[in-house]
Amino acid sequence: MTRRELLAMIGTAAGSSVMYQAATSLGYAAESEFKGPPNLSGAPKGTSVLILGAGWAGLVAAYELGKAGYKVQVLEYREKAGGRAWTLRGGDTYTELGGFTQKVGFDKGHYLNPGPWRVPYHHRGVMHYYHELGVKLEPFFQVNYNAYVHSKNAFGGKPQRYRHVLADFNGHVAELLSKLGHKGGLDGYVTKEDQEKLLEAMQDWGALDDNYAYKANAETSNRRGFEKDPGGGLSGEPVFSKPIEFSQLLQSGLWRAIGTGSGYEFQTALFQPEGGMDAGPMALAEKVKDKITFNAKVTEIQQDTGGVTVTYTDTKAGGAVKTAKADWCLCTIPASILSQIKKNVSSDMDAAINALPYEAAFKVGLQFKRRFWEQDEEIYGGITYTDLPISLIAYPHSHYGEKGKGVLLGAYPWGPFAYEFASMAPEERVKKCVEFGAQIHPQYLKEFDTGVAVAWHRVPWTLGCFGSWTEAKRAEHYKNMCQIDGRILLAGEHVSYLPAWQEGAVQSSLDAITRLHQRVTAK
Amino acid sequence: MTRRELLAMIGTAAGSSVMYQAATSLGYAAESEFKGPPNLSGAPKGTSVLILGAGWAGLVAAYELGKAGYKVQVLEYREKAGGRAWTLRGGDTYTELGGFTQKVGFDKGHYLNPGPWRVPYHHRGVMHYYHELGVKLEPFFQVNYNAYVHSKNAFGGKPQRYRHVLADFNGHVAELLSKLGHKGGLDGYVTKEDQEKLLEAMQDWGALDDNYAYKANAETSNRRGFEKDPGGGLSGEPVFSKPIEFSQLLQSGLWRAIGTGSGYEFQTALFQPEGGMDAGPMALAEKVKDKITFNAKVTEIQQDTGGVTVTYTDTKAGGAVKTAKADWCLCTIPASILSQIKKNVSSDMDAAINALPYEAAFKVGLQFKRRFWEQDEEIYGGITYTDLPISLIAYPHSHYGEKGKGVLLGAYPWGPFAYEFASMAPEERVKKCVEFGAQIHPQYLKEFDTGVAVAWHRVPWTLGCFGSWTEAKRAEHYKNMCQIDGRILLAGEHVSYLPAWQEGAVQSSLDAITRLHQRVTAK
Repeated sequence: MTRRELLAMIGTAAGSSVMYQAATSLGYAAESEFKGPPNLSGAPKGTSVLILGAGWAGLVAAYELGKAGYKVQVLEYREKAGGRAWTLRGGDTYTELGGFTQKVGFDKGHYLNPGPWRVPYHHRGVMHYYHELGVKLEPFFQVNYNAYVHSKNAFGGKPQRYRHVLADFNGHVAELLSKLGHKGGLDGYVTKEDQEKLLEAMQDWGALDDNYAYKANAETSNRRGFEKDPGGGLSGEPVFSKPIEFSQLLQSGLWRAIGTGSGYEFQTALFQPEGGMDAGPMALAEKVKDKITFNAKVTEIQQDTGGVTVTYTDTKAGGAVKTAKADWCLCTIPASILSQIKKNVSSDMDAAINALPYEAAFKVGLQFKRRFWEQDEEIYGGITYTDLPISLIAYPHSHYGEKGKGVLLGAYPWGPFAYEFASMAPEERVKKCVEFGAQIHPQYLKEFDTGVAVAWHRVPWTLGCFGSWTEAKRAEHYKNMCQIDGRILLAGEHVSYLPAWQEGAVQSSLDAITRLHQRVTAK
Repeated sequence: MTRRELLAMIGTAAGSSVMYQAATSLGYAAESEFKGPPNLSGAPKGTSVLILGAGWAGLVAAYELGKAGYKVQVLEYREKAGGRAWTLRGGDTYTELGGFTQKVGFDKGHYLNPGPWRVPYHHRGVMHYYHELGVKLEPFFQVNYNAYVHSKNAFGGKPQRYRHVLADFNGHVAELLSKLGHKGGLDGYVTKEDQEKLLEAMQDWGALDDNYAYKANAETSNRRGFEKDPGGGLSGEPVFSKPIEFSQLLQSGLWRAIGTGSGYEFQTALFQPEGGMDAGPMALAEKVKDKITFNAKVTEIQQDTGGVTVTYTDTKAGGAVKTAKADWCLCTIPASILSQIKKNVSSDMDAAINALPYEAAFKVGLQFKRRFWEQDEEIYGGITYTDLPISLIAYPHSHYGEKGKGVLLGAYPWGPFAYEFASMAPEERVKKCVEFGAQIHPQYLKEFDTGVAVAWHRVPWTLGCFGSWTEAKRAEHYKNMCQIDGRILLAGEHVSYLPAWQEGAVQSSLDAITRLHQRVTAK
């Protein structure tokens, strides 16, 4: 019996609080509670569900409901599945709102994920489907100690290595606390016994010397890196590097970037699917391919006590108007689009749909003729952060060390900067990103090859990046958005506590189909 | 022109100090100085070099000297190349000092690297050869936020998640400094202007609330993880987790493990070659395969003014005694072995060889029937640290999420614990490691399949793990070990400032052949 089985058995027999205690005593934290998709057994024969949208939420529902014996049909606006779990590759064409068309010029094997691009280990729903469907994963470095942190107003605009900023920040903080400890400054705050341990911890964590000082020596170079690295033979003696002064570091503001890997969604282990983020939904879509109707633009959703009727335009068949009917409808269309579709839902749900604004976001993929970030600067994967409008530069997490080309994520701002980029023509966006990026990597100017730029507010099928709940809006509208409204219910990242993440869409879908199944089987 | 070319040009024209300034102003740190293997052009025709040992040091020398036109022969004790860059796979047989033979029972695709097992991005020599020879790399997670830190004396012996310990340590330290700042406790230590920034930094870094307190809320759960993770729909509301008290954390000593990824050699990006650590030397050996004589046990090294004669036993041909001669000899045999071989070197070099002790180290590879660390505990790669004699458990960095078996590194102690394991029979070592590991992963007991244990002091061809220089020994002996001694010179990790690392061996070899070439061409 596995621990998980043991826990499940305890849970069944004794209820969840005993199970929680058992889990805790076995070393489990309570967070590992996802046990796979819900058990949907006992579906009444012939019950039909119409699913709108073939992104993660729609596909998970189609897959699970289909397995459970529901009659499922999926309508998808685009010519392929995946939704925002989208990958642009060489040869792809993308036309945005306003008519700009971009033809992607990347070499084979290179790509841009305009939407989600990383998956933390604890996104259990997504990981479950990756494992079940055999999607291969490769690690994603959120933190790269040799990447840069950059501010146009600090260090004369020169990018600083992450390891310098992190090591020096830790070291100076540790030195300060140690000084205070030695002069009685911590008395009254921390017991004498704890102060002893704290000093020991500060010395260790901050790489302080025997006198609790943070300065150029073997220990600090062994954190921040050397002026000249240790080598071999007679030429190998290392030269220590000199820390940045505390005051300069504090005033630079670059410490804002050092926590990048400490957020729960950004902690190791972090992954990406091999070959592009659409690998997950593509694998799911393959399982339900006979159930999906592509190029179906939904124009109206009408329900009555007998079922739901959806009207859609077949955009491939020259705009032919068609209808689809089912007992129930699971709608995963983003609220930004759904708010503009005619439908008869309760005023509560309607208000919720209309109340949700969508966050702006922008991404550009830049292909370069050679992998100069690896060859010249020894940056393999990870992210450089900057206060320039591009916000970051992310290095590819595959093809390490290869001699050919490479594609960088050249920008990923949200908010005002994203709107600014959205207001430009795609060509201009790419040009601007190359110019900004050249302030960090001068090689940009010579090595740039081709690029593609996606401004999410101009993506015709989302008109924005993700549902941007505020605390007040969530308090007022979220539950109304989740309710089964007659014969209609909603799913997607916008119907979750994890907006913007694929996991939000998956968990929202699992929650929705669980409740739908309960409703159906209770009848 | 690339930046690197530009710098090389500036360097040639203006000397190194100008080049250094130029590099600095271009954003380079000085550490990126390795520009590939040395230029060995102009080798006198027919000059011969006998290389002892086909590990990294010997192979690099054979490859580079061979390319430069030297006549090269390599003698290797073992039946294959690689030295300590060694990978044990299913079907392999290993006989240690004392006669114990282990047959490795791992499934196909799984392995143990008994020696080196990770390569940081800045090990430029190793990375150079990986890139040049097309060795595929996969990331190695030194830090996994969901792995454990464990002390038998803390938290009742229950392992704690790394993310809990790290987030709470940072949070409490930040809270303490903030309190001091608000009560004037930092006056005299930090200027008012810097205190403002410091408070802002502490709030950000420590996930403090508006009142600079570290306590259970959305922000801290977004660092340490939630009691119940955010999900979707109506069931998705998160439950916040509760931090560990500062005093308990300090007294636990578990903060000793949180710096694991901050050491220069352990910082991202960190890699392993796909399929096993021997991939690098195997690729090099393929390039010089016609130059290597395997199963050659060196018994004597004699030099005179005309050259070097090495006597060796052909262990495959029933102990036939043979000799090899060359103008020069590059000896990469570990000092632990070399000290026992008859040779005529200067008393200085002899003293250096005899003075160097070798560090003890022990590793065990444990194959389990299923990947419970992923399936039950959501640990994908990375390392759990413990104060048990096993020191650590490292999770595999490949085959993520697969349904089959998996091999853990079940122990990697140095020093006393390593000697203890070395004193046991291999079977007993494995059994002990399973028992210790079960204190962290109870699944060990049910899921254990097969194991292999390597105690480096019983490896016949090294009698220890790596050259363990003290500061005093290095001051007295290191340079004597590096000198060209008549017609003999040494290379290997023990002749470097990076002992134990493959990079030390590579850089030592590059340094040695550079000096040898200078000596030869100066004649």
